[in-house]
Order: sequence, then C-alpha cells, then structure tokens
Amino acid sequence: MRSGPPFPDTEFAARVARLRQEMAAREIDALMLTAPADIFYVTGFLTRFWESPARSWFVIVPGTGKPVAVIPAIGAELMGGTWIDDIRAWPAPRPDDEGVSLLADALREAVPPAGRIGLPMGPESHLRMPLADFFRLSDALAPRAFVDGSAPLRRAREVKSEAEIACIRRTCHLAGAAFDRVPEIARPGRPLDAVFRDFQALCLAEGADWVSYLAGGAGPGGYSDVISPAPDRPLAPGDLMMLDTGAVRSGYFCDYDRNHAIGHAEDALRRAHDILFAATEAGIAAARPGMNAADLHEIIAQRIEALGGVALGGRLGHGLGTTLTEWPSLQPGDETVLRAGMVLAIEPGLEIAPGRIMVHEENIVLREDGSELLSPRAPAELPVLK
Amino acid sequence: MRSGPPFPDTEFAARVARLRQEMAAREIDALMLTAPADIFYVTGFLTRFWESPARSWFVIVPGTGKPVAVIPAIGAELMGGTWIDDIRAWPAPRPDDEGVSLLADALREAVPPAGRIGLPMGPESHLRMPLADFFRLSDALAPRAFVDGSAPLRRAREVKSEAEIACIRRTCHLAGAAFDRVPEIARPGRPLDAVFRDFQALCLAEGADWVSYLAGGAGPGGYSDVISPAPDRPLAPGDLMMLDTGAVRSGYFCDYDRNHAIGHAEDALRRAHDILFAATEAGIAAARPGMNAADLHEIIAQRIEALGGVALGGRLGHGLGTTLTEWPSLQPGDETVLRAGMVLAIEPGLEIAPGRIMVHEENIVLREDGSELLSPRAPAELPVLK
Repeated sequence: MRSGPPFPDTEFAARVARLRQEMAAREIDALMLTAPADIFYVTGFLTRFWESPARSWFVIVPGTGKPVAVIPAIGAELMGGTWIDDIRAWPAPRPDDEGVSLLADALREAVPPAGRIGLPMGPESHLRMPLADFFRLSDALAPRAFVDGSAPLRRAREVKSEAEIACIRRTCHLAGAAFDRVPEIARPGRPLDAVFRDFQALCLAEGADWVSYLAGGAGPGGYSDVISPAPDRPLAPGDLMMLDTGAVRSGYFCDYDRNHAIGHAEDALRRAHDILFAATEAGIAAARPGMNAADLHEIIAQRIEALGGVALGGRLGHGLGTTLTEWPSLQPGDETVLRAGMVLAIEPGLEIAPGRIMVHEENIVLREDGSELLSPRAPAELPVLK
Repeated sequence: MRSGPPFPDTEFAARVARLRQEMAAREIDALMLTAPADIFYVTGFLTRFWESPARSWFVIVPGTGKPVAVIPAIGAELMGGTWIDDIRAWPAPRPDDEGVSLLADALREAVPPAGRIGLPMGPESHLRMPLADFFRLSDALAPRAFVDGSAPLRRAREVKSEAEIACIRRTCHLAGAAFDRVPEIARPGRPLDAVFRDFQALCLAEGADWVSYLAGGAGPGGYSDVISPAPDRPLAPGDLMMLDTGAVRSGYFCDYDRNHAIGHAEDALRRAHDILFAATEAGIAAARPGMNAADLHEIIAQRIEALGGVALGGRLGHGLGTTLTEWPSLQPGDETVLRAGMVLAIEPGLEIAPGRIMVHEENIVLREDGSELLSPRAPAELPVLK
C-alpha cells in the first residue's frame, strides 16, 4: 500500500539524479534532510504526523545508491511502503539520543572525514530537529563540514515533473469545485468564521485529503488583512470577502483565492476586481521560461498602475508545490531565472482605499512557450452573493 | 478584533511573569522565540500563515516590559490586535536580510554584551528560521551568548491556566460531538479515505476552526500503523477502525481517538478494547501531581500486562495544548514531575496479533487531588458499525 502520491519509483530515482547533479556541482558528498517537504520529495513519505514536534526524522541522500531513512520506529511501517530500502529506526522519543548517534553513523558511511554534508540552511528552509542535537551531531562528525545544501533542493524542487503537475492540477480543480459552491455557504448575515468552516468542508467534499491553509478576510469596501483567522462578524451588504485556500491532495498544494461582493458590489470594488483580473491576465500571458522573477513582478505591477491601481508592496506571486509557498518570489530583486515546469502563484494585490485591500491569485505552470493555467480561472466580473 | 483565543491581557502578562521566573533562575537575559506555539503563547498571535515557510517571525521576551515582535510587515496588522505594543516589521521576504538586522538591534537593546540569550534548543523544539540566518545573527551579537532557553518555555507552557484548560475542553467536546456522528459516515463498504474526509468535515461542523491532524487506520483484526494517511480501501466486516484527531479551536488542540469494529466485533477485538479501556481508566485514576511521567507510564503498562495484554513499546501518553503533542512523555526514563494544570493524553496501546495493534487515547487535566477528564469518555464496549 502506497500512502503518498501515485508515483512510480522512477519518479523518485529521477529526483535523486537531479539532486546529485546539483550536489556534484557544489562538491557536496551527501545531503541531510530534516524537513517534511524535502523528505516527501525524495521518498514519497506522506503523513500528517509532522504535526507532532516530539520526534526528529532524517533522510540522507548519499552520492550513490538510494536515500537512507533514519527515523523513529513509529514511522518504519509507513516508510517501508515507499521506494526506500535502507530504513534505520530508533525508539523515539528518546531525548538523550534522538536519533543523533544513528544518524552520525549513517553520515560517516556516506561522507569521508574530509567531506562535505549539505544541509538546507538558506531562504525558506528550516532545520527540523532540536538545535542542541544538531550541535551534538556536528561535533560527532568533525572534521566533516556542514555546508549550505539549499541550492540542490531548491533547483530540483522548483521544476515539477508531469506527475507532480498533474497532482497540483487536481488539487487546483477540487478547490475550484469548492469555490463554485461558495454561494451555498456565504451570504449577508452569515458569520465569516462559519463560512471558513464550511468552505473547508466543501474542499474535503470535493476531494481534498486535508485543508492545510485557509485565510482571507471580509470588510466594508475591502479587507484589511489576508492572514487572519476568521472573526465571528456576520457578512454585511457592501463587504468584500476573500477566501484563499491551500488545500492538499496526495501531498500537493494549491494556493489561490476568490473574491466575492456581499449583497451588492460598489463601483470601487468592481473596478479593483477588473484591475486585478487584468493584471493576473498580464502575468499569465507574459510568464515564460528565461525571464526572471523580478521581470514578471514588474509586468504585473505595471499593469495595475497602468489601469490606475495602487499595487501592494512586497511580492506579487511565488512558487508552490509540496508546500503552500516555495521559491522564487515575484518581487523586485529576485533574479531567479524562470524555468519550464515551475509552478507559480500569480498574486496581484492593490489598495482600494487606506487600509482596504484586494488580492487575487491564480496558479500556473510554466511551459516551454509560455504558461498553462492550473486553477480554473476566476470570473472576469466580481461575483455578488445575495 | 482579537483573532486568537478570548484571553484578557492579564493572561499573557501572567505567562510572561512565569517565564521570567524561569529565566532568572537560569541567568537568561532575554528569550528569543521563533516557533508558532511559543509566539502564540506569549502574544496570542494566531494565524495559519505559518504554513508558508517563506518568512521568519521573531518575538523577544526581555527582562522587563512586554515582549517585542520583530515580524514581516504582512503580519503587523494582526499582531497589532494582540496585547503587544512594540512591533517592528520588515518587508519580507527579503532573503538578504530576513529580519536579521532588525532582530539583532532589538536583542542588543534587551541583552548587554556579556549577557545570555535563551533560545529553545532542547527536546521537541525547532528553530524556525534559516540556519544561515541564525549563524549571521549569532556573529552579529557576539560576545552575547546563545544558551538553551527550552526550560523556561517548557516549565511555563506545560502548566495550563484555567482559560487554556477551558479552550482545550471545548476542543475535546467538539471532537466528541464529531465522534458521536461516526455511524453517519463509516460502515462496511465505505473507503477509509472518504471516512477521513467526512470526519474532518464533522469536526468543522461541530465547531473546529481547522483540523490539523487526523490519522488512524483500519484492517482485519487490527491496524498495522497509526500515522498513515487513509488508503481508498473499503472498510470490510471484521475490520477494526481507529480515528485519531487533533482538531483545533482558538489555537488549542485536542488529541484523542476512538475505535470501532466494522460489521461485527470478534472476541479478540472486544478483549483488546476492554484491556485498553481498563488501562486508560487506571491512568486517569492514578494521575496526580507529584508522581513522575515514568511512574504513570508504569501504571498504565502494568494494567495492560495484568489483564493479559502485550503493551506497545514507546510512550503511552504525552502532554498537549498549543501543539498536538508536548512534553512530557509517559515512558520509562521520563522523570518529569507531574504538576497541577498539566494537560495529558493517556494513550495505551497493545499488540493484538503480530502486526495488528489497537491504541486508545483520552485527554485529562491534572488537578491538585487527581485528574479531570477533558474528552468525553469512550464507550466501555467496542462499538460496532453496521
């Protein structure tokens, strides 16, 4: 029984081969992975048990052979269902030695004393193990050096395979089916927190395995914030409501939103929606391999300004896949060259009035000659819920 | 508008006062927090935006005054609704300086050059920032020393206030209402993945803000694993099915499970359920302040063995609260002295046959004279779904 996405072993072997190219270019002898998305990427190991911080999990990508899993015994059965053969387990939690000695042994096998161990340390990475354990590990492995192993992961994970793109498309479509049903759950008088609960249930009903992210907002003439949980304030005529979801199916996320006017749509809201729709169109039309992330940001931001809008600062899009957001960032200064197979959120936002904003978002994949929509496109006109 | 739990400022002030007692005992001048649960604990800042790994978030607990938030600009509005006054924001993501210089300035204000900065580094903690940024920060702040700041967080967070206990009780009860409705969604022939989706929707319908964790299993005569996502295999007569949920309301988790026999319950399953029910009763009856975590484990494990069961290795319970699992672990070697106000999962498990297990779980809070159930108690007899 496979619990993860329905990928053949060749998918994972190809990923590891790509990682090794990037490792070789940086003289990295082995990668050490601790984060859920990285471990999922090389093994297919999918569980919600990451929610418990009690145990550390490790996967090593050596220079040759399959990855090696050094994991808590509670996960050995599930890891045994993946393509990984070499699974070394300890009875966790065991705070005195939370897998550190087992991991050190495995790294000694994979990395010579003068060698280099790549550990993701760069932007958007976290070390998912107690820091004190890492210091212990580092001492135990000296003179081996830990170096930043972010680049191989980033380079490999950024470009999705067709199998991955199919997974993300499927998640986007199930979220789209849920968005189509928003009129069933949102109307004047309904509290926003009830809408949030119901929308997550709609995502599940339409096939999400779970809903890792739902945010948004609602307020008169616009919302003030896009990362808050929902208050129990009832929706009121004149509100703009936005739902932004990161549903998950087979371990792959979507990340896009929909705006709705409540009761009626004032001209300022219609106009803002028109501008964001057009800016999103511009981003979708312009996105292609070879340009860089900052260039794509510029095109989206300029379209907003050209139509008389005030673009929000910060990024106007980002990658996504096995996490809700991934590199690159569509923002000034991000010189990442876009490549075919990258999956991106195009996410323009503008200020409608001081403290009142609107954000729109769609998901695309870059193809050799442009981009392909993965999310069903939002309606061109701001929909109204009565 | 408060987005987090409905706590008065005095709740947070009391938490910080408790932290400071523990800091003073360890000569820690300030705590630096990066993890969602720690930041939620001292500020009340509640968001699902943690799902995005793109940005770092920092909160400093200095020796005097309120905590200081050093956070991405996108969170300033939401943090502004908490009791925190000093909010310093940068336009994140900004990989070249992801808040590091702003954080270094704030820590210089709070900690003299010869001082010590407490950072959680111990069991069950993670540093939620890129490791390269931490090394940069550490260099910038020398000669200030980073020391393990786990103990103050652990000592404070382990003991819940009445306001926190009320939150956890509420989450336990809404999950209980969902468990009561399992007969609506599970029966012979229904695929387990559909049951998982529906159960999450039931939790939402009963008032969960979101469902951060659902695991379990189903199989003939027992399940083999308790951390897997659900396969699409239809439930079959003779199966034992278990659902284990970490629903969340106002930022507080429950973590408990229910077992059901599918179609009919064979004697071996009934007997296993009886043993686990009795072992859970023994744990609930015995748990009290002053004993240690290993002692409570021993009582639960011995009850299983006394009734002819084969107890699972590893821990048979743990803390919970603002994360699905927290310290301590009910297992041999964990000498943590239990204190009034600790919320615990009592989680006995046994082997029914080789590769076939059953696990049961309830949530309690320790009171001065014993324990109080927070989860509605499971039925004494294994329920059957037809």
